[in-house]
Amino acid sequence: MKTIEVRSSQREQWIPLTAQVQAAVAEAGLRRGACLVYVPHTTAAVTINENADPDVGHDLLMGLGKIVPRNWPFEHGEGNSDAHLKSSLVGCSVLVPVENGRLQLGTWQGIFFGEFDGPRRRQCWIQFLQGVQEHG
Amino acid sequence: MKTIEVRSSQREQWIPLTAQVQAAVAEAGLRRGACLVYVPHTTAAVTINENADPDVGHDLLMGLGKIVPRNWPFEHGEGNSDAHLKSSLVGCSVLVPVENGRLQLGTWQGIFFGEFDGPRRRQCWIQFLQGVQEHG
Amino acid sequence: MKTIEVRSSQREQWIPLTAQVQAAVAEAGLRRGACLVYVPHTTAAVTINENADPDVGHDLLMGLGKIVPRNWPFEHGEGNSDAHLKSSLVGCSVLVPVENGRLQLGTWQGIFFGEFDGPRRRQCWIQFLQGVQEHG
Repeated sequence: MKTIEVRSSQREQWIPLTAQVQAAVAEAGLRRGACLVYVPHTTAAVTINENADPDVGHDLLMGLGKIVPRNWPFEHGEGNSDAHLKSSLVGCSVLVPVENGRLQLGTWQGIFFGEFDGPRRRQCWIQFLQGVQEHG
Repeated sequence: MKTIEVRSSQREQWIPLTAQVQAAVAEAGLRRGACLVYVPHTTAAVTINENADPDVGHDLLMGLGKIVPRNWPFEHGEGNSDAHLKSSLVGCSVLVPVENGRLQLGTWQGIFFGEFDGPRRRQCWIQFLQGVQEHG
Repeated sequence: MKTIEVRSSQREQWIPLTAQVQAAVAEAGLRRGACLVYVPHTTAAVTINENADPDVGHDLLMGLGKIVPRNWPFEHGEGNSDAHLKSSLVGCSVLVPVENGRLQLGTWQGIFFGEFDGPRRRQCWIQFLQGVQEHG
């Protein structure tokens, strides 16, 4: 397992991870299988979405804020229950296929750490799963 | 890794994948482990839900449309930010256990490609992950 | 694959799974890889979130109920379409890294079965995926 250090500078923010995850796959020597990108936090997440137009990331954060308003009558005393709920909606891991030692992402896809209660120092853990040799 | 071609005929639509995924598992020769169904698009998704009553699929699309209205003031110029957000909420992959060469799905479960910005030609990528031999 | 039996006592409820999943990993003998926790139901889910303050779990259920009201004009006749939609939003599986035979969870993280249409007897399936030996 490898660790990527992530540092957020705002309360809510996407932080690109694709290049670091690809480097970790190359370093681990995984040829065929999948790469698990795992966020060990409960007010953050990780997602795969458009890597081209940064307006998409803006729209995703704006939309999540409308789906889960911060001012709902939450009971948890830290004032970040919206971030906990966004974490469970978006999810704390993604799993990406690996072939020939490379992440298999779609043309427009990138991997993004989702900060929902920053700014903070965060981590991402990367695990490498063995694929099965196909017949033929 | 295997590729399944998917063709949607509407803007929003569930397309059943279970039979094709099961066939891919059999062809790959995976006996024990898990099967990753991965969508390499940013305005589509994949989910596991009820395979019996098609009203459930209708209700899921209707509900997603209420959670993420298309007319929110998004900035991304393509008019499909709702689809990007639905993709991150539902997720672009599912991972299904495999035992004895067969997908292990619950009685009522099926695997569905979620089109949120069709109609389009799409793909699904299938990767096969090696399980661990259990003790005893 | 191992099976954990789960019994819910309310319509909506989080049921802690962490200890049972860790025990299953130890019993399976997996040293490095990942553990798939899979829910074979379509009106339930599994998530990873805060394991310390139970108010967080309360807030998550309350928020999910606001995002997906039970009284939307659903067509599915069983009156549980809200539960089906929550299942697809939260997801029916989580994948947790394993190193040295132990689940790798963040300090505050726990694994929770999400019941959205109980009370019922439910199951969780646990599958163990082989990691790759790293270089060096």
